[in-house]
Amino acid sequence: MSQPLRLKKNADRRLKAGHLWIYSNEVDIRATPLKAFQSGDLARVEASNGRALGVAYVNPGSLICARVMSRDPAMAVDRSLFVHRFKQALALRERLYARPFYRLIHGEGDLLPGLVVDRFGDVVVVQLNTAGMQALSEAIVDALEKVLKPAAIVFRNDTGGRRQEGLDAHVEVVKGTLPDEVLLEENGVCFAVPVLDGQKTGWFFDHRDNRAWLNRHVAGKRVLDVFSYVGGWGVQAAASGASEVLCVDASGAALEQVAGNAERNGLHEQVAIGEGDAFEALAALKADGEQFDVVVLDPPAFIKKRKDIPAGERAYARLNREAMRLLGRDGLLVSASCSMHLAPERLMDVVRGAVRHQDRHGQVIFQGHQAADHPVHPAIPETAYLKALGVRVFRD
Amino acid sequence: MSQPLRLKKNADRRLKAGHLWIYSNEVDIRATPLKAFQSGDLARVEASNGRALGVAYVNPGSLICARVMSRDPAMAVDRSLFVHRFKQALALRERLYARPFYRLIHGEGDLLPGLVVDRFGDVVVVQLNTAGMQALSEAIVDALEKVLKPAAIVFRNDTGGRRQEGLDAHVEVVKGTLPDEVLLEENGVCFAVPVLDGQKTGWFFDHRDNRAWLNRHVAGKRVLDVFSYVGGWGVQAAASGASEVLCVDASGAALEQVAGNAERNGLHEQVAIGEGDAFEALAALKADGEQFDVVVLDPPAFIKKRKDIPAGERAYARLNREAMRLLGRDGLLVSASCSMHLAPERLMDVVRGAVRHQDRHGQVIFQGHQAADHPVHPAIPETAYLKALGVRVFRD
Repeated sequence: MSQPLRLKKNADRRLKAGHLWIYSNEVDIRATPLKAFQSGDLARVEASNGRALGVAYVNPGSLICARVMSRDPAMAVDRSLFVHRFKQALALRERLYARPFYRLIHGEGDLLPGLVVDRFGDVVVVQLNTAGMQALSEAIVDALEKVLKPAAIVFRNDTGGRRQEGLDAHVEVVKGTLPDEVLLEENGVCFAVPVLDGQKTGWFFDHRDNRAWLNRHVAGKRVLDVFSYVGGWGVQAAASGASEVLCVDASGAALEQVAGNAERNGLHEQVAIGEGDAFEALAALKADGEQFDVVVLDPPAFIKKRKDIPAGERAYARLNREAMRLLGRDGLLVSASCSMHLAPERLMDVVRGAVRHQDRHGQVIFQGHQAADHPVHPAIPETAYLKALGVRVFRD
Repeated sequence: MSQPLRLKKNADRRLKAGHLWIYSNEVDIRATPLKAFQSGDLARVEASNGRALGVAYVNPGSLICARVMSRDPAMAVDRSLFVHRFKQALALRERLYARPFYRLIHGEGDLLPGLVVDRFGDVVVVQLNTAGMQALSEAIVDALEKVLKPAAIVFRNDTGGRRQEGLDAHVEVVKGTLPDEVLLEENGVCFAVPVLDGQKTGWFFDHRDNRAWLNRHVAGKRVLDVFSYVGGWGVQAAASGASEVLCVDASGAALEQVAGNAERNGLHEQVAIGEGDAFEALAALKADGEQFDVVVLDPPAFIKKRKDIPAGERAYARLNREAMRLLGRDGLLVSASCSMHLAPERLMDVVRGAVRHQDRHGQVIFQGHQAADHPVHPAIPETAYLKALGVRVFRD
């Protein structure tokens, strides 16, 4: 039986509403001192009146000091639980997707707080983002083996979230052997995925549907893909008939992979690359008199913490203004943000400001979100983070 | 030259941000009394310092007393302007859609405040929702003739908005002759559209993409379509392989058309109809022990005005709770709201509450909005009104 973790009076409201997080200031530390817990310990969560609310893992050093693993306080948190949850998650993905390329586990959205699992065929990439999940890593690997029988399991334990949890950073192939190339198919286009040294798990499945939307609108167009990474948007646009695509990124390594991915799909003549800071690249393109029919802005999160909101909003605003200057008379801007702290209506306002700044008109014809393999937990707003607006920009 | 309409100091901020509305309390009525205007008059809008901001039409009796037709104060508001705007709007739709079935003009979103035009092939249905547009009806009809050469133009001037503008209600074929049946195709399925006596213009194009999403997830499923109207969701679900569909609506006339539309697509064996109040029908289905794999809730706007928000939210909550009781172990709920006053995060909370009420788990795997032929004006939040959540509901 795990030790109890007693909440203060009324501190159970969020959990009762369905949320899975407990903040350290919500714990009745006189009854159950947090320092009695080791990082990663399991606890039986109790309301102030002693009623059991579920089982959670604890990190006494984190602001979110506990995350609920089950609302059933008697549930054993072991391999069986992971097998059950993985099967539940897999059932959804197998209904959604014909091929085995997707996010299998989206943390809280799949009732597994702090765990991310991306699947690239028989290669599985895992992020253990909390001390609780780190402590359960063996059960996780065993359960993945049982449910998926993958050829390789990779830990990409080099996320920013781990630092806050007091965990080290490491990347490791923990089971099997990686093939020379890890490949995936998205919207009918093939990509190599740098699972060991790319961003995050190597790929961003979350924009799958947003890219699919854009793909329907690029035939014959000249497309600029800013923050292209390995070419998810740009190479797919070329495959969808864009006449010319320029992928811009600050990473030469990512751009080499853009070129490789274009080549892989027979699109090397349509896809060009440009290395450099996005803002500088946009300015240089403007100075050269370049114009595009479509500009895609898919920047990294400019707002990582609440305190970064004002500076981050200014950065999004500047980026969108600069991009809009490169659009022709009747152009399409795709403006994305993966910052959870940027509310959808704020991104709309960023677009509004950029349109007005150029004295143009804007029509938002698409409001996209994260794909279905990144389920939003309806009680946890923090699980909804991705926005993508498709905006027709024109002069009246 | 139109009369001036002078704004109070700082009352030009919303317009400068791109919005098109002027509220009556923003007018400097000492300089330019509203009562000097007839309903529908045009005015040159001026900032408090006299700088011209554009041309607007005026309704001195309305809370929104003026709506901007052009930011160019010298622009003539006549047939030419409508021809220009219609062509601009048409260019977008022709890029978006292979066939001529869409909303051609979405009011402010197409820079034509108060005007709605839906196109069903060569039949065009118009709503003039403001006194300003009513006054311009001849120019509108002439411009539609020039741009589209339709076989028939219908005025569906029986909207609630017209009452607030002091306008009468009437339905009229103003040009040409209506065919015996007006047909459209949406997502590959054919429907008859009751343009003269159906809801709104006869059809709701706004859910096109949301229905397309659902269509991908219904094969072999038992589907309940609540507030079915003429079967937009239900008949498409059947066409997409649903094993069984029950369409529920309070209108016997609408249900007759569901049956006709099912028949038209060879789906009469899959589609059943049930007449009655939605809440009563849900209770009766529950009492009978019925279960569905998919439930679609597409109710009329429960919140028409800001003051209706609390009661409206309770109605959405109750509806979603009742619907969730009919879902099987691993079901899909589509929960929509066309109430502009229900914020997206409030609909998310409605779903959250319904899931918790049944002690189930929910995963929001789709967040849909109005289709691209209902463009959102980025400076006018009021132009964004439609939400549809796709929620996997399961027991852990």
